Parts: sequence; structure tokens; C-alpha cells
Amino acid sequence: MTAPDAARVDYLLRLGDDALILGQRLSEWCGHAPALEVDLSLANIALDLVGQANLLFGNIGDADKIAFHRDVLDFRNCLLVEQPNGDFARTMARQLLFSTWQHMLLQRLASSTDRFLSEYAAKAVKEVAYHRELAAEWVARLGDGTEESTRRMAEGLDWCWRFIPELFEVDETLQAIIGSGAAPDPRDFEDEYRSAIAAVLAEARLDAPAEQRPILGGRRGHHSEHLGHILAPMQYLPRTYPDATW
Amino acid sequence: MTAPDAARVDYLLRLGDDALILGQRLSEWCGHAPALEVDLSLANIALDLVGQANLLFGNIGDADKIAFHRDVLDFRNCLLVEQPNGDFARTMARQLLFSTWQHMLLQRLASSTDRFLSEYAAKAVKEVAYHRELAAEWVARLGDGTEESTRRMAEGLDWCWRFIPELFEVDETLQAIIGSGAAPDPRDFEDEYRSAIAAVLAEARLDAPAEQRPILGGRRGHHSEHLGHILAPMQYLPRTYPDATW
Repeated sequence: MTAPDAARVDYLLRLGDDALILGQRLSEWCGHAPALEVDLSLANIALDLVGQANLLFGNIGDADKIAFHRDVLDFRNCLLVEQPNGDFARTMARQLLFSTWQHMLLQRLASSTDRFLSEYAAKAVKEVAYHRELAAEWVARLGDGTEESTRRMAEGLDWCWRFIPELFEVDETLQAIIGSGAAPDPRDFEDEYRSAIAAVLAEARLDAPAEQRPILGGRRGHHSEHLGHILAPMQYLPRTYPDATW
Repeated sequence: MTAPDAARVDYLLRLGDDALILGQRLSEWCGHAPALEVDLSLANIALDLVGQANLLFGNIGDADKIAFHRDVLDFRNCLLVEQPNGDFARTMARQLLFSTWQHMLLQRLASSTDRFLSEYAAKAVKEVAYHRELAAEWVARLGDGTEESTRRMAEGLDWCWRFIPELFEVDETLQAIIGSGAAPDPRDFEDEYRSAIAAVLAEARLDAPAEQRPILGGRRGHHSEHLGHILAPMQYLPRTYPDATW
């Protein structure tokens, strides 16, 4: 059974925009990471994510048009991924919270009734397993590190924490896709997600941040000012010289 | 037979700095390429190159110290790789001229008497074969494209042309390495190189640029002002916060 077209397009945009925007954020570290190995890891993750976006967009239209010719209000990514990099600790906190969620989602999406989505998920889940593992290692290492790294990791997690609830929000669009069997219901793995994050925090010897007022709206196009700052440099060239590749 | 130590270290720095600096240059395209596929290709090449630098530096010391704590005068890369990206055509002209040379070098370095270098080359040559192929395709496509793309590709080649002779220069250091059997003599493949570039230009329906006064000196630390602009953002973070990874 295939989900209604409009909902399916919207769902693929959500998945693709999450990947594209986080990929762009991570690529801002290019040449600015504190060590070569870190530079390579972040660039690898960025590359995986932009590749995922390219696959997803290509299934619903012209991937470049979708990436470069939409405005802020048309983006459907969750707010977590558009958050500024901050320091390396905050970048890794964001990565842990997102990749853990994405990994659990893709594991289930691999048995989607939508053939494209199941094939996509089977491929991407391997990449994301590595992102998740790397982020978990860094969070543990920095959390259980020096006084300074512990403080920074706690601050990074604290910044990102209020964006978790959005990952588990189910609106009408998502409900339609879930109903068709094309996508998993994220609420089914929220407990597993909370436990997995708690296990990493325990290893990092960090307390979970205090619960904060959740911030929602990214899936409906309500973005922070940060998204515009990601899109501006990314879209400048293709918009200024459409169809040019020199 | 192993080459004298100082010459060997210098030779590995030359190879590693070529890769590191070109990798950094290409990573400046992150999020600024005219199309997603192009963004992914350039990021992939950058990643390969920074990975190669990491391997080479790791063989002679602490890779991060070597990448992040040397000054402009200590860099041993050829001048071609530090040239500004310019537009996409110039970036691809630079890539063709460098990757073709690097590919021919690595093919021969794979039979180096230096075990590390032969293993390194056998691995890297596969990556670089792809870089060379991609650059050749783009040069042909843009050269034999629209009036605008043809003009820009001709200009890009013209800019890069004067940096070719440095690739085939043999000084005392390199002579020592060649003498030990650890490295090939680049002059042995200069004709093959010139023919290979001419073949791509023929496919691109472009004339070879007029010969210009060669610019030399990168291998001895005489760099253009451009190198400083690459190193500044790359080295800022590791130098400001030594040993920090948060």
C-alpha cells in the first residue's frame, strides 16, 4: 500500500531536510576541527548525510531544485539539526541525540511497505550506526574527561535537550504515512531512545539535563533564524547562476 | 635500501602537504558547490586527500602537530595546490593538472623500496585514479560546453599552467630519494603527463595555454600569500586550544 502522495512527499522532505541541514552544519567544521582525525570523521558524516538527502530528494523530483530553490518556510527538518555547532562538545551532543533517533527510525523503516523507503533505509542505517557510535564515544569521553570538557559537554546537552520532543511528535501528515505502513510510529521507540541516551550519559558520568519547555514547529516550516544562515551560503551560487556548473 | 632520514622526512612532507593543502582548498567548496552531486564529489576528493596527509604525517611523527603547528615557511607543497579555487572551472583545471601528476607518481611509487611508501601508494592510487577521471570529465564537459563555460575553462587552465614545471623539478632532496630507490624520478613521466593532458584538452576542444614563465619554490618553502589564508582558519582552533577536543 502506498501512502497518499502529498503526505509521502512531505515525509521524504522531512527525512531529506534533516540529513541535508545536519550535513551542512557539520561541513562548517571542514578545516576547523581540533584534530585531523576529528576533521575526517565529521566530514565523513557530513558526506553520508548529504548523500542521503540527495537520494531522498531524487526520489521525489530534481534533487538540486529541492535543495537549492526552496525558501526557509518550505524546509521540513527538525529544529535540532539546524542548531549552531557551538563548540565540539555541543556538536557531539547534537549528533548523539539526532543519530540515535535516526538510527532507531531507519532500523524500522527498513521494513517499510514503500519499496524505495525500505531500500533507502537498509542502505543508510549502516552509515548512521557509525555516526551514532562515534557520537556516543565522544560524549562519554568528553563527559568523563577534564573539568572543562565535562562542563562543556553538560552545557552542550543542556542546549540540545529541548529539541528532543519534536523527534517524537506525530502530526496528521506523519499519521497518514504511519497508517499506510510506509513509516514507523516514532512513539513506539521513544522509551528505547530515552534508555539508550541515559546509558550513554551514565557512561559519561553526566546527569540528564533538567526537562525544559519543548520547542516544536520545524516539521511545519517554523524555523529558527539559524536556518536562514545555513541556507544563504548554500543556495547563493546555484541561485545566482542557475544551471551553471563552471 | 632506505633513503637518508632527513631527505625521507622532507619527501613525505612534500607528498603530505600537497594532499593536505589541496584537501583544504576543496573543502572550501563545502556547501557552496553549484549542485549536490558536485558538492559530494568535491567533498569526497577532499576527504581522500586529507586522509592521505594523515597517513603520511603519521609515519613521520604526530600527524596533528605536523598539520597544525608548522608555519607557512615549513610547508613543502607545490604551488599549484595552494592556488585559490576561483570558479568551478578553475578548480577543475587545477584538479586535472594535479591529479594526473599524482596518479602517475603513485603508480610508480607503488614499487618503492620503502615499504611504507609502497603500501601507501598502492592504497592511494585507487582514490586518485577516480579524482583524475572526474577532473578529466569536467574539463572536457566544460571546455566543450557553452561559450561561457569554454571561456572560463580556458582561463582556468591558463591560470594553472605556469605551476606545471614545479611538478617535475628535481632538487638535491628528491635526487637523494630517487637514488635510494624510494621514489620515482618525475622527469621519467613528464612526456606521458604532457600527452595525457593534451588528450583531455583535445576532447575539450581547447588549445593548450601559451607557455609561461614557470613559478617554482614551494618545495623549499617559498609560498604565495594564498597559503597563509588556508592555514589561518585551519590552524586557529588547534593552536588556540592545544590538546583540546571539546
